[in-house]
Amino acid sequence: MLDQVKLQIYRYIQELRDERVEKLFVRIPFGKMLRSKLILQIAPSKEAIGLAAMVELIHMASLLHDDVIDEANLRRGKPSINVTFGNKSAIMLGDILYSKAFYELSSLPAPLPQIISNAVTLLSLGELLDVELARSFNPDIDRYMDMIYKKTASLIEASAMAAAQIAGKDTRRYGLYGKNLGLAFQIVDDILDITQDEATLGKPTMSDLKEGKTTLPYIYLYEALDEKGRERLLSLFKKELSNEERSWLQERLRDTKSLDRAKQKAMQLGQEALECLDKEDERLRSIMTQLIDRTY
Amino acid sequence: MLDQVKLQIYRYIQELRDERVEKLFVRIPFGKMLRSKLILQIAPSKEAIGLAAMVELIHMASLLHDDVIDEANLRRGKPSINVTFGNKSAIMLGDILYSKAFYELSSLPAPLPQIISNAVTLLSLGELLDVELARSFNPDIDRYMDMIYKKTASLIEASAMAAAQIAGKDTRRYGLYGKNLGLAFQIVDDILDITQDEATLGKPTMSDLKEGKTTLPYIYLYEALDEKGRERLLSLFKKELSNEERSWLQERLRDTKSLDRAKQKAMQLGQEALECLDKEDERLRSIMTQLIDRTY
Repeated sequence: MLDQVKLQIYRYIQELRDERVEKLFVRIPFGKMLRSKLILQIAPSKEAIGLAAMVELIHMASLLHDDVIDEANLRRGKPSINVTFGNKSAIMLGDILYSKAFYELSSLPAPLPQIISNAVTLLSLGELLDVELARSFNPDIDRYMDMIYKKTASLIEASAMAAAQIAGKDTRRYGLYGKNLGLAFQIVDDILDITQDEATLGKPTMSDLKEGKTTLPYIYLYEALDEKGRERLLSLFKKELSNEERSWLQERLRDTKSLDRAKQKAMQLGQEALECLDKEDERLRSIMTQLIDRTY
Repeated sequence: MLDQVKLQIYRYIQELRDERVEKLFVRIPFGKMLRSKLILQIAPSKEAIGLAAMVELIHMASLLHDDVIDEANLRRGKPSINVTFGNKSAIMLGDILYSKAFYELSSLPAPLPQIISNAVTLLSLGELLDVELARSFNPDIDRYMDMIYKKTASLIEASAMAAAQIAGKDTRRYGLYGKNLGLAFQIVDDILDITQDEATLGKPTMSDLKEGKTTLPYIYLYEALDEKGRERLLSLFKKELSNEERSWLQERLRDTKSLDRAKQKAMQLGQEALECLDKEDERLRSIMTQLIDRTY
């Protein structure tokens, strides 16, 4: 059914009747389509395929703007649109995908358009907060969790809620599953930035700190270090790391169990997500457990 | 009633509950609020105030992204958000305003959300086309008219259509009025870029050509010049102009009647707009005539 979502996305793009857009669009690699999987799992129906296609368009739009903001060169191992076609095209293509998705959403019955568009506002507020937090090293866990809720979890939460609405299931419970899944997903991503190699990540290892992202493992590391260690950690913020500095960070993250703490936090959130599910939601369970497994 | 639209806009911003957004938002100067005037004129009602506030949010969002794309330093005589707070904040604030507007739109009855969101897609397609056309001097009038229809006229057309829908008036006729008004409006803007001084414009004179915008007067000039003149014109495309080059362009634009031709085109579109109106639409007539008067 994921293929049907892809087909629907291509139909939406063709409806724009713009060659340039089609040319740009085919250069965006499809990702894991986590949001679509979730939607189709909760509500296996034709209506859900359209919703999933709209949510994927929104997610793609947000990544296009995200890559401009992060000055990213790679997305899923391929040159990002901002690098190949410039920031201007990336910003505009993002706006085109957003507005096409909203156009399609506006034909769905209430409260589906409200659920999704509210999440897009949160998502953009999260991006703005991310830019704000990147000004200096952020040791505040609460601000970090607020940011990843808005930036990553809100659209996953909304996807689950909207799908539950379509399927006549409990929107609050599935929303909470989606929210916790989204938070866990982001923390796992933060961990992989540190533990995986460039080939697997599709972008350079440990790029988060260089980009000003004080992710959870680094916040825990800051808490664990003594004054001298903290000074060294702060001196590496937003810097191009030497091999020696990289090794120091890797070792400290392991020795202080900061990586382990982050994994535990992801697992705890994953556990909370699972508790929202019925026994029969076997596939939704496996989406969660596969996610956590990626950190090992 | 324009003040009520402004109050409604501030209420929407406050509902986002984000200090940073409020801080950024107050730095955006309100413009002439043409779209609101049009909406309130066609449908003087409480419902129309909400619609006008949503359309203004969308217009502001598009200007924020527009200024990032054009690398503009000034907007209505004040430093633009991208200059004061950086491109990242400008892109994200734009996304926040867009999504808040879509969220509010989604509670309006069909076909209002569809009319407006379709225009936002056209608007973004127009921006992309604008970027595309800026690669080299564009002597093609049809492509230029297509671009300004999408980029400028589509949202004005949609505003008029949506207002007519609310007021139970003929959406097709008012839409056509809005479209022609929008096209005339953009051409007048293109003329003013050439004829007005920096203080009046709120940005440097003749910045369009430097930014790669081959506006209507320049297309007409290209048509009127001989081979040698064309070569000189092309050599000035996207260049910082010397006083001598500026004078040459000003003189040539006058001598060849290229500016006059552009004014005539704006007036012709203005006339077509007026023909869509009833006799009693006195205020809508004056919006149109005041617009044309600005070129004298």
